[in-house]
Amino acid sequence: MDIRACLFDVFGTVVDWRISVSRDLAAFARQRSLPAIDWLEFAVEWRKLYQPSMEEVRAGRRAWTVLDVLHRESLVALLERYRVKGLSDADVDHMNRAWHRLDPWPDVVEGLARLKRKRIIAPCSNGNIALMVNLARRAGLPWDCILGAETARAYKPMPEAYLASCRQLALPPAHVMMVAAHNGDLEAAKAQGLATAFVPRPREHGPGQTTDLAAEPACVDVAAQDFIDLAAKLD
Amino acid sequence: MDIRACLFDVFGTVVDWRISVSRDLAAFARQRSLPAIDWLEFAVEWRKLYQPSMEEVRAGRRAWTVLDVLHRESLVALLERYRVKGLSDADVDHMNRAWHRLDPWPDVVEGLARLKRKRIIAPCSNGNIALMVNLARRAGLPWDCILGAETARAYKPMPEAYLASCRQLALPPAHVMMVAAHNGDLEAAKAQGLATAFVPRPREHGPGQTTDLAAEPACVDVAAQDFIDLAAKLD
Repeated sequence: MDIRACLFDVFGTVVDWRISVSRDLAAFARQRSLPAIDWLEFAVEWRKLYQPSMEEVRAGRRAWTVLDVLHRESLVALLERYRVKGLSDADVDHMNRAWHRLDPWPDVVEGLARLKRKRIIAPCSNGNIALMVNLARRAGLPWDCILGAETARAYKPMPEAYLASCRQLALPPAHVMMVAAHNGDLEAAKAQGLATAFVPRPREHGPGQTTDLAAEPACVDVAAQDFIDLAAKLD
Repeated sequence: MDIRACLFDVFGTVVDWRISVSRDLAAFARQRSLPAIDWLEFAVEWRKLYQPSMEEVRAGRRAWTVLDVLHRESLVALLERYRVKGLSDADVDHMNRAWHRLDPWPDVVEGLARLKRKRIIAPCSNGNIALMVNLARRAGLPWDCILGAETARAYKPMPEAYLASCRQLALPPAHVMMVAAHNGDLEAAKAQGLATAFVPRPREHGPGQTTDLAAEPACVDVAAQDFIDLAAKLD
């Protein structure tokens, strides 16, 4: 393996979206005296609308649309379902930007710095560029560039999301490694010829998580404990 | 002015392409015992083919093509004109990547670090993503992301090159400042509603330079001495 670039899934793999989104919304709710809601449940319900919203675009039923827009539509629907009323457009925008304010897992910043020494590092996320830039500035993620759905104009796991990222780095897929906490993402990357690394995030979905607890050997080249371990293994 | 992001022209504004390309080619020529050629002249001739090659794409006579490909075609034509023979495809690729190995002007790294503290910084160059990433890693340019022709699929000075960059940052053009050593670039950016800053690079074209020695007031909001001065003025 001669890995010149590592591409990273972000939601779940780099950042803890569940705790971060719920904490952000709960803080806003307190500040604005919104009705008592289980914001952890709300965050999980919001995330459940993620795949269906992208599927409209993947299936070609909807023109290319960035994730900030899909997230906002899902949020508006959820606020209605939870009967939260009286919010301004700016309030909803602020809540939607909770996805720009996600905290990284503890190993991420150090691990990325180590991985960056010898190779290009970039997200390959379904999040759009603005989301990724704001998230990286706040969390201190030292990306070399932002790749993923918006630069590819295709949502993972469509082949083009991975292939465009390799092409934009002018690297053959065999020299590019996809890093994720989700075996499905790695399976799709491997099918396009990329190398793959699995990093477990067993609390992404909370204490009762049952999926993606371990690497599936068929689609994973390197199984690492975390980003620091991955850097050690690649060096 | 409430500037949330600064976009930078790169060739000439951030890096000294003329000296860097000629030095890179001269070193390769010595190593490979190529015939005696004035590589400074060669670099300038190569650059002369830059605008015409992009114009084919801008005018719609050619499908979207990244700059690395246009650069390589121009290089092959020039090598023929200068009667340089016996180079392999890998040799030509190496020479073409001279554009990935450009040195920044002395104020750039410190100035970008200062500008980055309070705002997003990104190139808005006609160079493609791979070129910009390799250049930034070598020169230590701390971009938040890579924007420009490839993410916009439009070459400057077409409006879409500037507008797509603002849209991808989710910022209105009035909150985005285009920084360049070329008044023409700033004129095009200003026409799309961006703020503008001029930084003179009076040796970009060598000691006899006659163009872009000073800001044209009609299209320049801020005239700075260099990137460090620009950071001071914006703070």
